[in-house]
Amino acid sequence: MLEIKSLHEAFEAYRQQHTFEQPPKGLYEPVEYIMSSPGKRLRPILALMGAALFKGDLSKCLPVAMAVEIFHNFSLVHDDIMDEAPLRRGRPAVHAKYGLNTGILSGDVMLIYAYKFLAQGARAPGEVANLLQVFNEVAIEVCEGQQFDVDFESRADVTILEYINMIELKTAALIGGSLQMGSITAGADEAAQAKLRSFGRNIGIAFQLQDDILDTFGDPEKFGKRVGGDILQNKKTFLILKGLELAQGEAHDTLHLLMSTTPEDEAHKVQTVTQLLRDLDIPAWAEAQKKKYQEAAFGALGALQAPESGKQQLRALSEQLLVRES
Amino acid sequence: MLEIKSLHEAFEAYRQQHTFEQPPKGLYEPVEYIMSSPGKRLRPILALMGAALFKGDLSKCLPVAMAVEIFHNFSLVHDDIMDEAPLRRGRPAVHAKYGLNTGILSGDVMLIYAYKFLAQGARAPGEVANLLQVFNEVAIEVCEGQQFDVDFESRADVTILEYINMIELKTAALIGGSLQMGSITAGADEAAQAKLRSFGRNIGIAFQLQDDILDTFGDPEKFGKRVGGDILQNKKTFLILKGLELAQGEAHDTLHLLMSTTPEDEAHKVQTVTQLLRDLDIPAWAEAQKKKYQEAAFGALGALQAPESGKQQLRALSEQLLVRES
Repeated sequence: MLEIKSLHEAFEAYRQQHTFEQPPKGLYEPVEYIMSSPGKRLRPILALMGAALFKGDLSKCLPVAMAVEIFHNFSLVHDDIMDEAPLRRGRPAVHAKYGLNTGILSGDVMLIYAYKFLAQGARAPGEVANLLQVFNEVAIEVCEGQQFDVDFESRADVTILEYINMIELKTAALIGGSLQMGSITAGADEAAQAKLRSFGRNIGIAFQLQDDILDTFGDPEKFGKRVGGDILQNKKTFLILKGLELAQGEAHDTLHLLMSTTPEDEAHKVQTVTQLLRDLDIPAWAEAQKKKYQEAAFGALGALQAPESGKQQLRALSEQLLVRES
Repeated sequence: MLEIKSLHEAFEAYRQQHTFEQPPKGLYEPVEYIMSSPGKRLRPILALMGAALFKGDLSKCLPVAMAVEIFHNFSLVHDDIMDEAPLRRGRPAVHAKYGLNTGILSGDVMLIYAYKFLAQGARAPGEVANLLQVFNEVAIEVCEGQQFDVDFESRADVTILEYINMIELKTAALIGGSLQMGSITAGADEAAQAKLRSFGRNIGIAFQLQDDILDTFGDPEKFGKRVGGDILQNKKTFLILKGLELAQGEAHDTLHLLMSTTPEDEAHKVQTVTQLLRDLDIPAWAEAQKKKYQEAAFGALGALQAPESGKQQLRALSEQLLVRES
């Protein structure tokens, strides 16, 4: 089994052989700009690990790894427009650098290129149908998750289960899909695919819960972004939803008021909300929730018929991502 | 061979069985809104004609017909955002009715659904690879054509050949692709596919040239939109490009000035430009250009090994669209 670093390098080498330097420049330069910006490459690495688990030929999986990374970056380009986000990975977002129209059109062509690379990842014509079905399902889920996320902003009655379902669609589906599509290129059977998909979805949910926890309770010295960003955006993460469920009387009113208004004193808002959540023991509850999805993921992985060394590597990567502080 | 009206009805029946009424409503209602707005359904009808030519089972082709119509409507949704167009088919454009973010995200999910329907149009798993390849190529060309169209707005040295290449990518590629993909569902061989593709691309160029001619020289009593719209938008169609090539001295300066400024007196601008083009015999030249592509199309169709009745129907539909006055 190759080290994660080697998988990352193999993907980067492939990506650099498949740059977007063709005309028209106005369409493709922004694609190369976002694709070459330094990312963790988590999804392509997972696709390659999905193939490696079943002793697949990695060179056959590289186009699929490229497809999931292009799709992920497409979703970032369009999401950044919708969120009016000026920055991405420390650089100007595509729409901020090249304009709204370019952000839309270059994003569109990226989505199509994802399918183009996907089609190249099939060993046999029949495999294309398989990959296409998984990819379509995941891509639709990502759009639906984004819509639910938008809808939740203006709803006061979102449940924790609805929130988890939203992050499963928006984030975890592609994590699971990357692993599953990687395994398809190595000829994994349907039972194995289903377990890998389940592992990926559960670990993907745990990753996102970890993101939420860090955004609110992270160490400002170690966290890359500003701690409290979600609170300032009035984002009702599972932490806030649980807080609103548990808080009583004045504490409930304060939490509700702060999370539905934009007071001038930002530091005070973040501090008050965070303290209210701490008083309700939300950090411990949140860790337990995260652990629950992590355990469900490891359960699915344990039941998977594959060499122990490969499964151990997936566990190690997951743990590394789940104890991170930034 | 079924009448065009029957093909239109078969497509509408299929579309009405495949509405977008699932949650989340914020994502799919705009999709159903544009898909149910009355359109000519030219591309799905051409896909069905491509299948009928080779005695294909129309029910197998209907998902592919749906795929090309969804793709076409996706491109309208995103183009209308980029062009800031308030109306589409006499109704508010999607972004005008539902907002920019919805226009982007609902458009994205339409593009994915186009692939989802496409995958359902394959008789055998191997056929998916074939359909996917043609679809990807065409979809990329449509995006590139849109980018060239944008680029040409700020370029003063566009040639007529570049203009024709742009409309081939932006408009004609999908016309050709619809026919070709329809024929794939009926098992047409590669030589037949290539001829049908060539017919579609050439006739698609002729359609777009006809659009340009009507926009400038159409009868205001019969033309649905305002005659002179392209002139008022300073759109350098092949008519203007040829006019600038032929005009001398003062006529050239006037044409160049009017087509690069926005004078207050719109009627005077349209009248002056149109008269300058008439003085240069542009209408006759334009008709000859259109005829050239129509003849290239009919030449490819003539060389196609298929029943004469089916080919005659394609000729009849083309002629009907090429002598239209609106």
